[in-house]
Amino acid sequence: MEIRVVACDVFGTVVDWYTGIADQVSSLLPEVDAADFAERWRDRYHPSLNRVRTGEREWANLDTLHRESLDDLLRELDVAADDATRDELVRAWHRLPAWPDSVAGLARIRARHTTTTLSNGGFALLTNLARYAALPFDCIISAELVHAYKPDAVVYRTAPTLLDVAPEQVLMVAAHKLDLEGARAAGLRTAFVERPRENGPHPPVDHPEDVECDLHADSLIDLANQLDSP
Amino acid sequence: MEIRVVACDVFGTVVDWYTGIADQVSSLLPEVDAADFAERWRDRYHPSLNRVRTGEREWANLDTLHRESLDDLLRELDVAADDATRDELVRAWHRLPAWPDSVAGLARIRARHTTTTLSNGGFALLTNLARYAALPFDCIISAELVHAYKPDAVVYRTAPTLLDVAPEQVLMVAAHKLDLEGARAAGLRTAFVERPRENGPHPPVDHPEDVECDLHADSLIDLANQLDSP
Repeated sequence: MEIRVVACDVFGTVVDWYTGIADQVSSLLPEVDAADFAERWRDRYHPSLNRVRTGEREWANLDTLHRESLDDLLRELDVAADDATRDELVRAWHRLPAWPDSVAGLARIRARHTTTTLSNGGFALLTNLARYAALPFDCIISAELVHAYKPDAVVYRTAPTLLDVAPEQVLMVAAHKLDLEGARAAGLRTAFVERPRENGPHPPVDHPEDVECDLHADSLIDLANQLDSP
Repeated sequence: MEIRVVACDVFGTVVDWYTGIADQVSSLLPEVDAADFAERWRDRYHPSLNRVRTGEREWANLDTLHRESLDDLLRELDVAADDATRDELVRAWHRLPAWPDSVAGLARIRARHTTTTLSNGGFALLTNLARYAALPFDCIISAELVHAYKPDAVVYRTAPTLLDVAPEQVLMVAAHKLDLEGARAAGLRTAFVERPRENGPHPPVDHPEDVECDLHADSLIDLANQLDSP
């Protein structure tokens, strides 16, 4: 298979959202259990995307959905927070640490392939995150460009369309079964990257043996090695 | 003025299209006067964009317009070239050298500001060009994202919209009066960069004294210095 573009999911796959959000919640809302808060906030992620995907609500970018689910969570937990704190919490998703192998792995991959994000994060969020964590992407592709969310096929197709390659020349990299199933259905190649610590102390949702994909790696450095070997 | 995003025109402003195209034409079509050919091809640029802008033809990306104007020019000059050669010539616009100050200047600017392209080049073209010339952009913004061409206001507005800043927090950088007038009309700040060799031995079209703008620089390093000084 001749891969020309390596398109990466970001949250959980390239960056450690759990640690990043828990750390920032801990300093912005010292009265809450930060790890529990991070997890509950993320639990609202797929339901909020699904409301857009089903047409139950009009399209909004991820910052807006994060703000709505934050407001909802604060109300549920009966935690007070002013507007400035809420804005900072939403911006916490723009400042997340890379996994230890991400920068080196992507830099290796980039030497021979175009690297891009292919994420449900907004365009500004992804650009800020790439700057913050020094992620070596050649360009930013966001679901925001087509006002849809993965796993809708239209989002995956933005990568081959914008980068002018065939769908099968794009390798979608993710730590999530749902994402790779969507990519495969849209004609992309797929690589599963194991991220056993994505949910902190809780086990990951997807088990490697349940994910059908072209490549299987335990880090982005491992993936770079596999792409480099003939 | 608080600038958060520095958005750059690319052809002529960041890269030297004249030298890059003439060199590649010289090796792909050894029988033609390469410098003259480069100039004549570029002369067809604005007319081809205008046919899209006026609705005379449906939207097509710059690779398609370059191919059409190339076919037209080869016919006019009665030069034979097979399909593969024509494809290579169109791809020559994806492989252009940066001006000597561009990489260092952009890297300096990027330390404190988000850097992006804001160009009529297609998304793939700009991504390939940034890779080829190692241009330190945080993201790629192309007119292709909105199926329009500069100086239409909708193209300039993609930068503040996608990067979630106010229009006056975006500095448009270009070597062309028309481009900066369009950016100013869309509410962006403007910086003129002098590129006296843009057209090779021929004088540049725009004289610095005729361009109304917020900043005026003789290189991207000069611009970085001005942005760094309080």
